[in-house]
Amino acid sequence: MKKHIVLLPGDGIGPEVARAAKRVLEAIAEQHQHTFTFETHNIGGSAIDQDGTPLPEDTIEACHKADAVFLGAVGGPKWDDLPGHMRPEKGLLGIRKQLGLFANLRPVKAFQQLLHASPLKTEVVTGSDLLIVRELTGGLYFGEPSERRNNDAEVVDTLAYSRHEIERIVEQAFQSARLRRNHLTSVDKANVLESSRMWREIVEEKKQEYPEVTVEHMLVDAAAMKLVTNPSYFDVIVTENMFGDILSDEASVLTGSLGMLPSASIRKDGLGLYEPVHGSAPDIAGQNKANPLASILSVAMMLKHSFKLEEEAEQVEKAVQDVLAARYHTADLNISGGIPVSGSELANKVIEQL
Amino acid sequence: MKKHIVLLPGDGIGPEVARAAKRVLEAIAEQHQHTFTFETHNIGGSAIDQDGTPLPEDTIEACHKADAVFLGAVGGPKWDDLPGHMRPEKGLLGIRKQLGLFANLRPVKAFQQLLHASPLKTEVVTGSDLLIVRELTGGLYFGEPSERRNNDAEVVDTLAYSRHEIERIVEQAFQSARLRRNHLTSVDKANVLESSRMWREIVEEKKQEYPEVTVEHMLVDAAAMKLVTNPSYFDVIVTENMFGDILSDEASVLTGSLGMLPSASIRKDGLGLYEPVHGSAPDIAGQNKANPLASILSVAMMLKHSFKLEEEAEQVEKAVQDVLAARYHTADLNISGGIPVSGSELANKVIEQL
Ligand SMILES: CC(C)[C@H](C(=O)O)[C@@H](O)C(=O)O
Ligand SMILES: CC(C)[C@H](C(=O)O)[C@@H](O)C(=O)O
Repeated sequence: MKKHIVLLPGDGIGPEVARAAKRVLEAIAEQHQHTFTFETHNIGGSAIDQDGTPLPEDTIEACHKADAVFLGAVGGPKWDDLPGHMRPEKGLLGIRKQLGLFANLRPVKAFQQLLHASPLKTEVVTGSDLLIVRELTGGLYFGEPSERRNNDAEVVDTLAYSRHEIERIVEQAFQSARLRRNHLTSVDKANVLESSRMWREIVEEKKQEYPEVTVEHMLVDAAAMKLVTNPSYFDVIVTENMFGDILSDEASVLTGSLGMLPSASIRKDGLGLYEPVHGSAPDIAGQNKANPLASILSVAMMLKHSFKLEEEAEQVEKAVQDVLAARYHTADLNISGGIPVSGSELANKVIEQL
Repeated sequence: MKKHIVLLPGDGIGPEVARAAKRVLEAIAEQHQHTFTFETHNIGGSAIDQDGTPLPEDTIEACHKADAVFLGAVGGPKWDDLPGHMRPEKGLLGIRKQLGLFANLRPVKAFQQLLHASPLKTEVVTGSDLLIVRELTGGLYFGEPSERRNNDAEVVDTLAYSRHEIERIVEQAFQSARLRRNHLTSVDKANVLESSRMWREIVEEKKQEYPEVTVEHMLVDAAAMKLVTNPSYFDVIVTENMFGDILSDEASVLTGSLGMLPSASIRKDGLGLYEPVHGSAPDIAGQNKANPLASILSVAMMLKHSFKLEEEAEQVEKAVQDVLAARYHTADLNISGGIPVSGSELANKVIEQL
């Protein structure tokens, strides 16, 4: 199989973890006789520094032509005081929108070895294994108008969705649920928002096509509670962009393994952007301390979603599990009785396991 | 002091906990020679049943004339399938808006006796004592347009704020912070929303007037994480209506004492509506099992905010603490080595302590 991958290392620890991702892809390619080719482009703060914009034209063009995109991380204090359109995260929002990556998949899984680091009691978090399917290119993030009025006396943002946008994310969620435990929780605020009422109707329509999936509706405030009190209750959660932003970050800290969480932002034809959930961690950048496992698990998602290489994806996931079971870890993980190693050494261990 | 209180018992366990609230108010009145008078009106599902609307005119009128309002709880499966404008929660949204109760105060405090029931590890939650100040009459909840378009091909809701609405809630939060630990966290999504950028500007302007208060801005996704990983970090959180709905419910489950949490919805002249955070719990309604402590603590908030009776308020809070320390509890609390009692008995115990 021939695939072309665009690497967007970005800022802070982004380049380090992107390097680990690339090495894992190369190892997989060699073992399975695939041809993976790579090119690297700027995004975020480093793009601001080098090209004067967080999302250069050549980055967008390269991504359009790629089979998959890997993104390290964007942002850092250096660019915090720039005006809105020049902020590193505009690069991220821009690339999602420009590529039409409407579905953000955020799996959260409790690793037994890391539960001591969870803020939750072990009995509450054990067994948690959920997937948040967040709508990523609509809602409050991109709705118009979004503006001041009457000389700053008023301000509005707009939560806008088309039926088509809701339908495609709901379909994605049903398909994800079918590959997992067949339980879908659709999260909305139907007691307040008209958009949520339409969302609920569409979920009810679509569920006819997926009789094997059990569906329930949950209000976003109730979901925010239940994620903490009973995370293992959930299988797949589907929700709109802003609710998804909040709930997926809430969910990301439950298992004590934020440094382990991958994400995928995909569209229907298979193109996807894969990135670790953690940020650019400027405080440890360049010190070979960054945990590469979230990036490596993001590579597993790439293999699965963009390349349909299920077997290779599972091989990568299993290698990560094995390395943890052998108690290798970077400083952020702190496995008891473990063997602390650097970021690149941890990546080596995974590659050895492959 | 003469005060007139409107009781809105509502649905499910609402009437039981409203009775406990009234009894505590009567005990306080007797002891301190105040004259508290009461009248009772319908709201929510029981108003739908009796008056054909979740918010009858005479309820609104009575509240307008009152010095304070106590609300039990609204909603239940009986009314779940009614059309939107006939749902019990419309009564709640309506009364907030009609009375202009723009500030929702939701304190969350860890009670040492109840930490075993928290989903969080004891060392994570110990010492948590925070107050969420939620804007309650603006934002996505009431913004227009909120409608379908083009034959249901599109839908919009509107997040609208006036400068005045933001200013008054931010002022309320600074005032609350000044009475607590002088630390204010303003939560927004300024990297995406124009309304958040204006919110941030207004917080920056207002902070000049409160030099003793330390202010920081936090993105809503980061706040959703930090509430779980480090709840004791927070003192006062101020945020807009929908973010506040999500974060305050998330916060409500952290300490394992949802049955203990009061709330106040207030406006500038002191009129306020006080209600327990828990719902109408139809499954245990009428069985004298409902925990009255959240309602009794809501009465303490009423004494403080609407009547400026600080001393009486503290007396009520202390009585609740003492009753817990003596290990009396309703079934929901399950204090180890405790003495299980009915809802009305638990209220008796508090009144004895007064
Ligand atoms: C950086 C920010 C705009 C972004 C978002 O809100 O989508 C981030 O929080 C995320 O979840 O990827
Ligand atoms: C019932 C509902 C409309 C209400 C809200 O969202 O404000 C409730 O969740 C609350 O927080 O009081």
